[in-house]
Amino acid sequence: MEIKNDLFLRAARGEKTERTPVWLMRQAGRILKEYREVREKAGNFITLAKTPELAAEVTIQPVDILGVDAAIIFSDILVIPEAMGLPYEMVEAKGPVFPKVIETKDDILKLVLADPEDQLSYVLEAIDIVKKELAGRVPLIGFAGAPFTIFCYMIEGKGSKTFSKAKKMMFQHPELAHLLLDKITENTILYLKAQIKHGADLVQIFDSWAGILSPQQYRDFSLPYLKKIVDAIDEAPKTIFAKGAFFAREEIGKLNCDVVGLDWNMDISESRKLIPNKTLQGNMDPCVLYSDFSKIVSETKTMLKEFGSTKHIANLGHGVYPDTNPDSVRCFIDTVKSYSH
Amino acid sequence: MEIKNDLFLRAARGEKTERTPVWLMRQAGRILKEYREVREKAGNFITLAKTPELAAEVTIQPVDILGVDAAIIFSDILVIPEAMGLPYEMVEAKGPVFPKVIETKDDILKLVLADPEDQLSYVLEAIDIVKKELAGRVPLIGFAGAPFTIFCYMIEGKGSKTFSKAKKMMFQHPELAHLLLDKITENTILYLKAQIKHGADLVQIFDSWAGILSPQQYRDFSLPYLKKIVDAIDEAPKTIFAKGAFFAREEIGKLNCDVVGLDWNMDISESRKLIPNKTLQGNMDPCVLYSDFSKIVSETKTMLKEFGSTKHIANLGHGVYPDTNPDSVRCFIDTVKSYSH
Repeated sequence: MEIKNDLFLRAARGEKTERTPVWLMRQAGRILKEYREVREKAGNFITLAKTPELAAEVTIQPVDILGVDAAIIFSDILVIPEAMGLPYEMVEAKGPVFPKVIETKDDILKLVLADPEDQLSYVLEAIDIVKKELAGRVPLIGFAGAPFTIFCYMIEGKGSKTFSKAKKMMFQHPELAHLLLDKITENTILYLKAQIKHGADLVQIFDSWAGILSPQQYRDFSLPYLKKIVDAIDEAPKTIFAKGAFFAREEIGKLNCDVVGLDWNMDISESRKLIPNKTLQGNMDPCVLYSDFSKIVSETKTMLKEFGSTKHIANLGHGVYPDTNPDSVRCFIDTVKSYSH
Repeated sequence: MEIKNDLFLRAARGEKTERTPVWLMRQAGRILKEYREVREKAGNFITLAKTPELAAEVTIQPVDILGVDAAIIFSDILVIPEAMGLPYEMVEAKGPVFPKVIETKDDILKLVLADPEDQLSYVLEAIDIVKKELAGRVPLIGFAGAPFTIFCYMIEGKGSKTFSKAKKMMFQHPELAHLLLDKITENTILYLKAQIKHGADLVQIFDSWAGILSPQQYRDFSLPYLKKIVDAIDEAPKTIFAKGAFFAREEIGKLNCDVVGLDWNMDISESRKLIPNKTLQGNMDPCVLYSDFSKIVSETKTMLKEFGSTKHIANLGHGVYPDTNPDSVRCFIDTVKSYSH
């Protein structure tokens, strides 16, 4: 099906566009009262993510309500460990918790190579519904976690400031760490390919915990697996967003991907120099949206000027925070649309 | 009193030394069973920090047990908000919690300019005891939190991944944020001067949450206050450690301080270029100490080679993690001592 507003995809491919496209990470989420109503109906986050009709509904909400230039399938990066045999729970105000974590080689060997059409069919069905209901209005983004980030959760069992338990395995048993990273990578490739087959127009890989590694550790434990994934996928454009990995920008920029996401710590012109040939995505501090409208407008304009009018997809440098006023999000989006024109 | 092992101070001043000095952030802490015994006796962390004899005892432990080249006074960066009128509790496995936080201008106006000899006398008494008992064996480091980091806790009330509540005040009420930052800065200057008067041979400023700011926000909300502090103090050498502020290295390096701390994300040779004239401190990943001894030795040597033989104080890039084996810490320290000789 032809996509009517394809600004996002053209910008991802590096083409010149009439204006800068814009979307927000976590746009399908708690900032919208319409989302909270559906979430309430589902009962909890995981049920919402696993009910294709509801997941599809919240995926489309920000397209209608906020006017973003792309939808992103409502799901979670932790569906991959679950499909591999390691289920998790989402604990209110705490985040994901894995009742059982990976500790031994045996634990790793027991993990399966999931068939996305089977164990992850609920995501693919949601994509089917979204594509039908969007009817080509805007492109749909699929996504997965980077193997290193998924590894962190599978070992640590929950969020952490340091992920020192996960890193302990990297240092004490690097061969086990690589065995697990390989298994996650294989699963992720199949999963992203299936998302694209069902209609995802671009896939984004989130390396949310990249920032806890040293440059050398990142070279050893994350980059090779990112490379495997992007080299295995040529069916759609690919975005890599490695939060906190300022030290790896140049190397990420050399991978076979189309777009590189930046967080707000990363200086824009410096990042352009380090990643000269790719489209960049980002990177306003989500906290700017706590400001009054005039400040949101001026900060958004400053960002747009620094990125320039091509090879940029406007976004925040992180998921939008749940207590953000939707009117402030609209102010950001409208400023991008009118100012970049 | 003359200091017998003054390697640390000479390296801080940029002088050539026979070997690289070494100490660890959080060396007086849970890694040592001798510390845990004293902590048990005190009942809780805050009582331990407020009992000069016990604080002095745990300050000296790592000098005797680990053989570090400097002691650091056992205390907490949050004694400053407490002295200003905002007390906190230390909740086991959770960290510091402020029952009341700063929300209004009135809250800020009520905060006092503390007399360190009064409200913080317990820290100064601990320094007196340590200096007497160390009898010049090694230098003593005093410390305080950077105003921005203290500000984060006073607004947020507890640790946070994003400190979005604290940042909300920066964006919604920048004038209030600056008013509070100014008050914290004034308190910090008096406090550090008092520590030096009582015998601290160098003071370190910890900007633990620097990494949540954009380069411009850091210029607006942290650097000016760091500058005020280091410009106000010329009685002793000064170290600034801004964790995560890779983007501000060059600017920090231009401040009137002697040593700049690095975390393990920061590439050593790149940091040398950005901060050409100062001594650098750091920066091994604390998780390396989870490895076997041969890996600890090789990683330590790699770090020492990259820093070179002058203008370097060996340390980790963060506080040592509590579940680290003291023998692994000794392996790190002994490798620095023998290899850098």
